[in-house]
Amino acid sequence: MLTAWHLPVPPFITLRGDFLYLTLWLECDTAPEQVLLRAEPDNEEWLQAMTSRRMGKYYRYHAVLALNEGQPARRYCFKLIWPDHQRWVGPLGVSELQPGALGQFSLSVPDPGPDWVSDQVFYQIFPDRFAASNGDHQIQSGSYYHHAEKREVTRHAWDDPIVAEGSPSAFYGGDLDGIISKLPYLQKLGVTALYLNPVFTAPSVHKYDTENYYQVDPWFGGDAALVRLREQTREVGMRLILDGVFNHTGDSCAWFDRHQQHPNGACHHTDSPYRDWYSFWPDGSTRDWKGFSSLPKLNYASPGVVEQIYQGPQSVARYWLRPPFSIDGWRLDVIHMLGEEGGAKNNLHHLAGIRRAIREENPEAYILGEHFDDARDWLHAGVEDGAMNYRGFAVPVRAFLAGIDNAGHPVSLTAQTCAAWMEGYRAGLPHQVQLRQFNQLDSHDTARFLTLLKGDTARMAMAVVWQFSWIGVPCIYYGDEVGLDGGNDPYCRKTFPWNKEQWNTDLLALYTRMAKLRQRSKALCRGGCQVLYAEGNTLVFLRVYQREQVLVALQRGPAASGVLPLTPLLQAGEWKRLEGEGVLTSEREQLNLTLPEESVTLWRSRSKP
Amino acid sequence: MLTAWHLPVPPFITLRGDFLYLTLWLECDTAPEQVLLRAEPDNEEWLQAMTSRRMGKYYRYHAVLALNEGQPARRYCFKLIWPDHQRWVGPLGVSELQPGALGQFSLSVPDPGPDWVSDQVFYQIFPDRFAASNGDHQIQSGSYYHHAEKREVTRHAWDDPIVAEGSPSAFYGGDLDGIISKLPYLQKLGVTALYLNPVFTAPSVHKYDTENYYQVDPWFGGDAALVRLREQTREVGMRLILDGVFNHTGDSCAWFDRHQQHPNGACHHTDSPYRDWYSFWPDGSTRDWKGFSSLPKLNYASPGVVEQIYQGPQSVARYWLRPPFSIDGWRLDVIHMLGEEGGAKNNLHHLAGIRRAIREENPEAYILGEHFDDARDWLHAGVEDGAMNYRGFAVPVRAFLAGIDNAGHPVSLTAQTCAAWMEGYRAGLPHQVQLRQFNQLDSHDTARFLTLLKGDTARMAMAVVWQFSWIGVPCIYYGDEVGLDGGNDPYCRKTFPWNKEQWNTDLLALYTRMAKLRQRSKALCRGGCQVLYAEGNTLVFLRVYQREQVLVALQRGPAASGVLPLTPLLQAGEWKRLEGEGVLTSEREQLNLTLPEESVTLWRSRSKP
Repeated sequence: MLTAWHLPVPPFITLRGDFLYLTLWLECDTAPEQVLLRAEPDNEEWLQAMTSRRMGKYYRYHAVLALNEGQPARRYCFKLIWPDHQRWVGPLGVSELQPGALGQFSLSVPDPGPDWVSDQVFYQIFPDRFAASNGDHQIQSGSYYHHAEKREVTRHAWDDPIVAEGSPSAFYGGDLDGIISKLPYLQKLGVTALYLNPVFTAPSVHKYDTENYYQVDPWFGGDAALVRLREQTREVGMRLILDGVFNHTGDSCAWFDRHQQHPNGACHHTDSPYRDWYSFWPDGSTRDWKGFSSLPKLNYASPGVVEQIYQGPQSVARYWLRPPFSIDGWRLDVIHMLGEEGGAKNNLHHLAGIRRAIREENPEAYILGEHFDDARDWLHAGVEDGAMNYRGFAVPVRAFLAGIDNAGHPVSLTAQTCAAWMEGYRAGLPHQVQLRQFNQLDSHDTARFLTLLKGDTARMAMAVVWQFSWIGVPCIYYGDEVGLDGGNDPYCRKTFPWNKEQWNTDLLALYTRMAKLRQRSKALCRGGCQVLYAEGNTLVFLRVYQREQVLVALQRGPAASGVLPLTPLLQAGEWKRLEGEGVLTSEREQLNLTLPEESVTLWRSRSKP
Repeated sequence: MLTAWHLPVPPFITLRGDFLYLTLWLECDTAPEQVLLRAEPDNEEWLQAMTSRRMGKYYRYHAVLALNEGQPARRYCFKLIWPDHQRWVGPLGVSELQPGALGQFSLSVPDPGPDWVSDQVFYQIFPDRFAASNGDHQIQSGSYYHHAEKREVTRHAWDDPIVAEGSPSAFYGGDLDGIISKLPYLQKLGVTALYLNPVFTAPSVHKYDTENYYQVDPWFGGDAALVRLREQTREVGMRLILDGVFNHTGDSCAWFDRHQQHPNGACHHTDSPYRDWYSFWPDGSTRDWKGFSSLPKLNYASPGVVEQIYQGPQSVARYWLRPPFSIDGWRLDVIHMLGEEGGAKNNLHHLAGIRRAIREENPEAYILGEHFDDARDWLHAGVEDGAMNYRGFAVPVRAFLAGIDNAGHPVSLTAQTCAAWMEGYRAGLPHQVQLRQFNQLDSHDTARFLTLLKGDTARMAMAVVWQFSWIGVPCIYYGDEVGLDGGNDPYCRKTFPWNKEQWNTDLLALYTRMAKLRQRSKALCRGGCQVLYAEGNTLVFLRVYQREQVLVALQRGPAASGVLPLTPLLQAGEWKRLEGEGVLTSEREQLNLTLPEESVTLWRSRSKP
């Protein structure tokens, strides 16, 4: 028998000056002859004997890691040695084999990322569909011709249903002043940060086809409305990040100019000064993003693109970080695909440049990468502070609760497989990166989670509590909190139903309670995370920071009950149930749990000092 | 029941023009409704339905991957879909969870590395200890004062024993002309490429403390001897790579000049033009490599260092790649530690620069990184062509056969754990990178393998056959082939015993047979690799390329026998035993194996077309 406990957070680590104090707890039949802290300052293995102390049935090991040398990403694990064998302790527990370099515990000291991010509750807004100010600038049917769709734009009433045909050209009148008008609503909900889908001038309603990177779309209210939104959000202490679409432009962008509105665009002029800003096939056709001719890919082999998008003093990446806009960060669209010559060549090199430029303008800016799949290569490379956490959160949660994967294929996951997925994915990412992962249930690119669940509100509640209590920063996709539904694009982009009679007020109350809970819980915002039990339909995990512990139990399917032993990780304390109907009773050495069918329960405790 | 077979080599893949034809074989109770090839050109998931055909008890699936778009590292896996669940097939077999981005099959098309490497048999030479020409330039006791050791160098007779005291200053007279004199011996052994430990002027015998990067040590014969060696090796078709020590210099290097032999070194002159080429602690002391004051670390934050070591037209990295030296590549010492400001900061950035410079001089140069541990971060980043494969080969083989790890701690490995280690480590590395991994049993930095085995020649034979048949390029550490022994440095650096009476001629014959076998086996030089059976003391693996198959069975401990089923991977054929005493008999659907105690057996077959 060998069990080990360590997390890269207090009380297992303490930072004092230039030293990190680490504690490892073991329970075992025979204590190891030697326990070593294995670190790798500057990438070379370095072993240090740990001092040991018997504490009842446990052994406590202690080491001090000097921080004056080595890379800020402090990667470490523990090596346990007996006369004839050895074991290792890493973020996935005890193993026979040494964890890989990127599979060790990891903590960044100093932390290169923005410290404020993990304390937030984000809210994602698709600007045309959230709220309308009905100001003078509002778009009307026929306001302009949408070339890519070969039709004029149409204006619909707020309550008109979504129609697939012509959806990229269909406007409902939402705008930035509309968002301002709803800030009190968002504050009441507990939102502290906004992420807006693209707002720069572009012909489509989604605006991923940028026409002018230096102008907020006039139909959204123009630059002045963004300045107003910035001022108002600042006044209520709300952060604001925008969507940076740097992989491709729209085809009406003057640099490209497919529709010949400008003198000299790359599309029709081989001698255009912008010609090498894009890539062309031998037959002269453009290399587009995923074959959409309205989305020609930028070619980062061109010094002009590098200068304009991120490097130059007036680059797009810098411009909006400066007053009067002063945004708090960028969400970077399909950032893994950006690169040279029509592909992703030298992707990491350019991302490092984008990061450098952003940090120069605002050392506290949040750099959030969109990755529909595995983002670890980028996160380990340190080119972004966090990723849209599809692979590490949204997709496994969807698989466990809704039984389908990101491609819509059926998937059947036990709790243990789900835990192996989520724990395996984040293992080895620096703790602070894990805290800054952007945990969504859904987005403008997926069906609404409630729709995936076929309207099952019990499972929706499970998902919401999971989202707000799992490691990472939660982001509510506008309308999820009142039970807005909708399938894949365009149906996931319905207008927000401001008529309260259409709201699921239980769901809204749950979101509100969870948002408020996060704001007063260090364990949720900064804590370590560990699955304590995962079997069949039951998943139990713990968040911990110092003496605060938050215990979350998900029960899919029929009711169940069981026992969790108290350990150096899960400590004795007074447990207070804050969500759900599960029952927890404390005994001397264990917690007894009873979990109702299709339920989620959350408890919180502060152990004795 | 679900079993899958695929390797990223023929016959499972075929490259025709701009298309890669892929074949996957399945055996299962219920065929999937759909099998998809999952690729990620330019890092975004792309799913393609595979066509299927029933072939007896198997299903064969087929897809064609277009290569005109996407990154050269073609990463892919297979997704199998049933009505209520799904499975994945990657290099580690069938799994419930999707392999991570870097855990998929990977094949580079086009291949960015040197094609010649994987066909070689390398031989590592520590120049002072391999062979002496006894020319006029030979070093004598007192030839110079070795400052770092505070003593004069000493000259010993070839047969004098190694003495620890003063070993860095102890010379035995080996030199480059000595190597030339032994080329016929090496050719007879089957060696096709040499890797020399450092040869540039430096005070110590190991010469990792470079004094002059632009001069072959005069005591080794100077530049002229290297030109002679280059000409002679070229004449016999032998490759030659040198040791590039770019992380640190020696303390007697004129740029640093601890011993004040030059006017203006960084050590004693804060206004030295080289001052920022090194890093200093606040108290003025130098930041050294691992605290060795004779090895001050270069500071790559200095443009001067970047220019001198790799970027400039006369950089060290370029200089020796040019005529008349024209070396075939660099082995890069402790390359993961190189970086800025006394640490490894921006390591990958500078390695990319080193690679660029080397490739500009010689597009076919082999860039081999020394990593004592996990090298995958560097291999995936594409900054080197292969690594000294301690973590993926030498350490697990040592653990399995000798029961100790790289730090000298006891370790007990079953065959299945050993296989999990070796297969897990290489899974996801591009196939060509795997072929270029540098597989050694030992080196100048470790005890001799035979000594680790306490002289057990049966196990040594197991190790040797494993080394020559596992995926990667083998490198013999000089003397291993005749049974030279020795513990850790300095004892692993004994002189080569040219008196044949001291040779283990059985071992030498085995090395010679294995080297020759590699030269006529595509399966060994280019083939896929897969463990077929690993349990307890028995490890069986296969190398395969087109119709050629090489089967290797290692039996640690008592004799054993068992059965291997014939499958789409392990095909029927006429098996010829080339090494060992194991017995293989073919039945209709299976191979029966009988393995003697403490044995290794190797068979080869060519299946019918």
